[in-house]
Amino acid sequence: MSQHRIERLLFQVGPFRTNAYRLLQILILVVGLAAMTAMTVPGLTNEMHDWLASALWFCLAIFALELAANCWPRGTGEHTANYAFTASGIIDALGVLPVPIALLLGVPSDVAWLLASLWLLKLTTLVPGFSLLGRVIALEARPLASVLVIFLIVILLAGAALYAVEGNRQPQHFGSLPLSLWWAVTTLTTTGYGDAVPETLVGRLIASLVMISGLGVFGLWTGILANGFAAEHRRRNFIQNWDLVTRVPFLRNLDPPAIIALTRMLRRIDLAPRTIVVRRGREGDCMYFIAAGEVEVQVEPQPIKLGPGSFFGEIALLRDSLRTATVATTVASTLLILEVSDFRDFMAHHPELAKAIEKEAARRADAGRRAPTEQKAPPQLADNRGDDGEV
Amino acid sequence: MSQHRIERLLFQVGPFRTNAYRLLQILILVVGLAAMTAMTVPGLTNEMHDWLASALWFCLAIFALELAANCWPRGTGEHTANYAFTASGIIDALGVLPVPIALLLGVPSDVAWLLASLWLLKLTTLVPGFSLLGRVIALEARPLASVLVIFLIVILLAGAALYAVEGNRQPQHFGSLPLSLWWAVTTLTTTGYGDAVPETLVGRLIASLVMISGLGVFGLWTGILANGFAAEHRRRNFIQNWDLVTRVPFLRNLDPPAIIALTRMLRRIDLAPRTIVVRRGREGDCMYFIAAGEVEVQVEPQPIKLGPGSFFGEIALLRDSLRTATVATTVASTLLILEVSDFRDFMAHHPELAKAIEKEAARRADAGRRAPTEQKAPPQLADNRGDDGEV
Amino acid sequence: MSQHRIERLLFQVGPFRTNAYRLLQILILVVGLAAMTAMTVPGLTNEMHDWLASALWFCLAIFALELAANCWPRGTGEHTANYAFTASGIIDALGVLPVPIALLLGVPSDVAWLLASLWLLKLTTLVPGFSLLGRVIALEARPLASVLVIFLIVILLAGAALYAVEGNRQPQHFGSLPLSLWWAVTTLTTTGYGDAVPETLVGRLIASLVMISGLGVFGLWTGILANGFAAEHRRRNFIQNWDLVTRVPFLRNLDPPAIIALTRMLRRIDLAPRTIVVRRGREGDCMYFIAAGEVEVQVEPQPIKLGPGSFFGEIALLRDSLRTATVATTVASTLLILEVSDFRDFMAHHPELAKAIEKEAARRADAGRRAPTEQKAPPQLADNRGDDGEV
Amino acid sequence: MSQHRIERLLFQVGPFRTNAYRLLQILILVVGLAAMTAMTVPGLTNEMHDWLASALWFCLAIFALELAANCWPRGTGEHTANYAFTASGIIDALGVLPVPIALLLGVPSDVAWLLASLWLLKLTTLVPGFSLLGRVIALEARPLASVLVIFLIVILLAGAALYAVEGNRQPQHFGSLPLSLWWAVTTLTTTGYGDAVPETLVGRLIASLVMISGLGVFGLWTGILANGFAAEHRRRNFIQNWDLVTRVPFLRNLDPPAIIALTRMLRRIDLAPRTIVVRRGREGDCMYFIAAGEVEVQVEPQPIKLGPGSFFGEIALLRDSLRTATVATTVASTLLILEVSDFRDFMAHHPELAKAIEKEAARRADAGRRAPTEQKAPPQLADNRGDDGEV
Repeated sequence: MSQHRIERLLFQVGPFRTNAYRLLQILILVVGLAAMTAMTVPGLTNEMHDWLASALWFCLAIFALELAANCWPRGTGEHTANYAFTASGIIDALGVLPVPIALLLGVPSDVAWLLASLWLLKLTTLVPGFSLLGRVIALEARPLASVLVIFLIVILLAGAALYAVEGNRQPQHFGSLPLSLWWAVTTLTTTGYGDAVPETLVGRLIASLVMISGLGVFGLWTGILANGFAAEHRRRNFIQNWDLVTRVPFLRNLDPPAIIALTRMLRRIDLAPRTIVVRRGREGDCMYFIAAGEVEVQVEPQPIKLGPGSFFGEIALLRDSLRTATVATTVASTLLILEVSDFRDFMAHHPELAKAIEKEAARRADAGRRAPTEQKAPPQLADNRGDDGEV
Repeated sequence: MSQHRIERLLFQVGPFRTNAYRLLQILILVVGLAAMTAMTVPGLTNEMHDWLASALWFCLAIFALELAANCWPRGTGEHTANYAFTASGIIDALGVLPVPIALLLGVPSDVAWLLASLWLLKLTTLVPGFSLLGRVIALEARPLASVLVIFLIVILLAGAALYAVEGNRQPQHFGSLPLSLWWAVTTLTTTGYGDAVPETLVGRLIASLVMISGLGVFGLWTGILANGFAAEHRRRNFIQNWDLVTRVPFLRNLDPPAIIALTRMLRRIDLAPRTIVVRRGREGDCMYFIAAGEVEVQVEPQPIKLGPGSFFGEIALLRDSLRTATVATTVASTLLILEVSDFRDFMAHHPELAKAIEKEAARRADAGRRAPTEQKAPPQLADNRGDDGEV
Repeated sequence: MSQHRIERLLFQVGPFRTNAYRLLQILILVVGLAAMTAMTVPGLTNEMHDWLASALWFCLAIFALELAANCWPRGTGEHTANYAFTASGIIDALGVLPVPIALLLGVPSDVAWLLASLWLLKLTTLVPGFSLLGRVIALEARPLASVLVIFLIVILLAGAALYAVEGNRQPQHFGSLPLSLWWAVTTLTTTGYGDAVPETLVGRLIASLVMISGLGVFGLWTGILANGFAAEHRRRNFIQNWDLVTRVPFLRNLDPPAIIALTRMLRRIDLAPRTIVVRRGREGDCMYFIAAGEVEVQVEPQPIKLGPGSFFGEIALLRDSLRTATVATTVASTLLILEVSDFRDFMAHHPELAKAIEKEAARRADAGRRAPTEQKAPPQLADNRGDDGEV
Repeated sequence: MSQHRIERLLFQVGPFRTNAYRLLQILILVVGLAAMTAMTVPGLTNEMHDWLASALWFCLAIFALELAANCWPRGTGEHTANYAFTASGIIDALGVLPVPIALLLGVPSDVAWLLASLWLLKLTTLVPGFSLLGRVIALEARPLASVLVIFLIVILLAGAALYAVEGNRQPQHFGSLPLSLWWAVTTLTTTGYGDAVPETLVGRLIASLVMISGLGVFGLWTGILANGFAAEHRRRNFIQNWDLVTRVPFLRNLDPPAIIALTRMLRRIDLAPRTIVVRRGREGDCMYFIAAGEVEVQVEPQPIKLGPGSFFGEIALLRDSLRTATVATTVASTLLILEVSDFRDFMAHHPELAKAIEKEAARRADAGRRAPTEQKAPPQLADNRGDDGEV
């Protein structure tokens, strides 16, 4: 069950997508968008135009193939049929269909290809974290709408006032309400193009109020988004960590409030194979739990391997000393980081875990002292804590 | 008592207003404001002018009728007399009275109709959440005033300095203190119209300081509003949820600290009839308590109905599995959402609730296993937990 | 002891200053600054100039008198001598001395009077809360300085790059590093005067990066100030409330952690005499403790007076009902507000206080039921809880 | 062990750097950058040019010497070899190498010297707190990247739309996609140069949406950075304080959760010798623990010295009175500040510490009463609480 969800987390961007695939997709995207941009520059020779058009058709063809591949019926029939109606299905379709449709409808070629800018929406499925931002906006929709209404009220009142005050003096800039409203928008957002600027004293006083309101509106907006983002970030972090924590036997046997506290503290990190996690002689500012993958502790006489459910890096925190050995991943691994500040906090409130970790650290230090080299190394823990066994 | 407040929450925008009524009101508002805007555009033909004027008079008439209807004496004499002095009464009056008064006073028609922009204030009564923003500003008035004073000091000092430095060089832009102050306002708010730009080295150094101060002032302002908003949002959420939580028998029998903790965690959601709440086969990230209304669990052989005081969606959280059935509202309903992160937190700290919910889930799963289909469905809970009965 | 500090809080702006005095001071300030501003406008007649100069000299004379009065030796000799070296003494001196000194040194009259803009600094002593902002900036000086250094680095690198890229093309705007740096400042702060705009592709790409960096720098700055402000605001609120809470016998007999929790929850409010605090028939969203002053509960047959140490407004919260009586202050009073959300939280975690308040409420309701009118009113509590007596 | 880390904290900016050295370095930096800036101003005489070039070569020589000194092999061979690969080594090398290399490659002298702006990077090693900002950005990289993608999408869509709408009307500003994108960037960041401004109604509506999106994007960005900054700041503060707290015997004997709570509350302050910490007769708003250094309590008949592990300033908090004596540092000292709000909170939750401090305060007050002067002074605590002894 948990295994299932982990896999979904790791490969959450959808079917058919691996890291290499993603890089290729981004490359095609960049080529396509560059070609689209270049095609709008005046003074292109015919030959260059043909090249660019070929590049665009090539990208479109690839995206069409991708869409077809994803919609193609596979084993689980139910899932496939729905693909076209998922967010990424719609985004893929938006990348493929509009350009040919526009061309068929007789839209001039350079305008039709502008629709290729919809390809950029694909980035939203490639960059994780988009759904987070989307949910923040959805949850905070009410207060954000209130701010938008304040925004509209200020713009309309300011626009009407400036039309009344400056309309006769500068008819080309404030001679109608739409013109005044345009000025009000550029002023309230503090963009300030400077194409229309009030000249009378009253107009400038009103404009000053509008600018200060602009800062206020912006402040409210920022405050709402900042708070919403923080809450959602905590929630999401908790959900991701919970699955990982319950896979570490040493942790899932804590009492429930301790698990909750720890789940809030941990930070997940995904590492590529052969990445150095801690380096011997550096200061230690956190310890690690292995949720998935494997690390190698580089000690004499031969490296020790630690698998899922093990932990390392606690000695430097307990002894307030430097790292005693270099540790690197052997395969793609998911680690859970416990910062030293949270480590001390947790140890203070959960003495039973403190004792267990200190006992383990003592055992390791003792093992290190008897070893031919002076390096202290975290031994393999898998022997006494099986991945799925109960401790 | 609680019932009374719920109704007030649901119909809090005032007398005579339902959802359809609101939509109509917004429509009239949009038509009126569009007509007002169009009327200011130069080069209108007489015919168009007459049409627009008719539209404006029509909207004004409707708003006048609405004001009259709301002020008309009704059953409870005391309440009605006060309507004209409530916030929405004043806003309604501001929408109706100024335009005719201005016309009677001989103000030209196109300027008088600008006062119709006050109609937009009606949005403040239609969009809930305005009072929240208003209260944040009222509570944080002191620090906001301090920032405003800093703002004024920086503007005056910068304006005086630029007048001294650039006054002789650019008399048309910095030749008097009012001109310099205008430049200072546009610069400190980082609007930067560019109509007046210092040219000397000293003037530009001062301008740079003003711009950086502008970011600082803005930062303080944003910080104050963000914090005030977060506090007020929590408070308001708590008050709304409290009434709803105490209506769910399963919850109101918890010990008081648990109720408080839960009230802080829940998020209220109002749903239209026939809205799908959870969809079978999706991942479950929250559970639901029904505060008001009714939902239908779409299971074989026939759907099950759950009324106020019931809960559903807990199985996917307890089993870490997918949703086992689709649930939809039958009537307009108010649900309380408990996110999975808060669910786990609450279960950990309140094992007695955890046990009760798990027992119920087991009973449901057991019932599901004996059923002819493999779907597990939350059964009707109303039998053993009456809406007003003590559990 | 506490009494001493309360007085300091109420009259904290310094010697010789009451509310009426403050208003007068602000009036003189406004007159003086308006005169200073008007004097810089070209085209003044001689007569107007003389009037404005008279107004300025008048304001200066008053500020000089004020400074002299504050420095005048009074009873406690030690305190007075120091006045000239306190913040408000320095500000007062900055308002009085620079203008005459500048005139004596032969500075032209219109430039010398610009120094009168220093009068605005007096606002910092009139508006409470300035010291708060000052302390936030002092405490967060290190991270703010880091952001400033980032700011400088980005500006210098961007300025150098634009000088290299656009220097030959637009020598009048980017032809030297100071010119380029001016462009960089206006761009990084997102002011964007538009007097210098890059024209080459590379220049515009760099400019885009600078603008985006501008948002980032601004975001960091805002984040630092927002967090610092929140922390300092909590601290200051706690200190103010602590003194008040320990003056309410009903509260100061709680166990220490409860006092701490309550001190964090309360919000202080200072009311003028004859201010209505709660209005009969309104919804109740908080209760009140009287820290200083007196309120009158307007009940039949005759109003009841409540003095320091009493509380009121709890019935509406306990019964979830409307306010049963109107309450107004009789003299200037300081109340402590407990919002309904915090009230419920506190009651849940401190059942002993809950019981005491409910008992009192029951007693009051009982007393109200036996009274000839149906109004339930909070009776005088002073009889059983003396202001300084131990409960 | 702790001693080791303290020293690293105090001298953390690297080898060879003391306060005086830092000031000198900043001076050279300012001279060098000023010379570089001046050299780009057109119309320099030959003589001035030679002077400026000399100044630049002089600064470069000093930085080269510094780099050489830091790379020079010292006692611990391992450490030195790595210097060139540390952050500050790379920054030092970036300051020294690029200019000569550019000159050797034939780059004109005025352009080559622009690379001296890389000297400013040295500030990042001189200003502590840079690593904090860097880590915030690293930890929040994912959400920040999401916002950047939103940014890109909005820019591309807006640019394409404006190219389509305004391209024919204003070919010089919107006549190609790169031109339109430039407009979109200046608008979305609310910089608003005003060089390109839409003129059609549709164009202006789109522009308005872009500006409002700009505020939203900015708000998300600010929210992310603000939250990340707050979390990292707490973490870093905790780590620094932990070392200091565990050096104060009075504190390190508290039970672990109390130590954690206190570590979160304390604020570290580093003071120069002969700095006045508290002044007699002032209001007391905090108490102090001495982590390193020494202070002198200026009492009659002769001052008392307090060393590491002692505390002072608690009497004014306990008695709610003014400071009873002036206290100044004798040597460079590190103090830990406990604000009065946190003091009361901590006392309430940890009565055992409250008792110990109150007992000590009583002892001191008693000692003060018997002394010939009325001043109450904190006596030397070192006698009964040795620095390293167990209490």
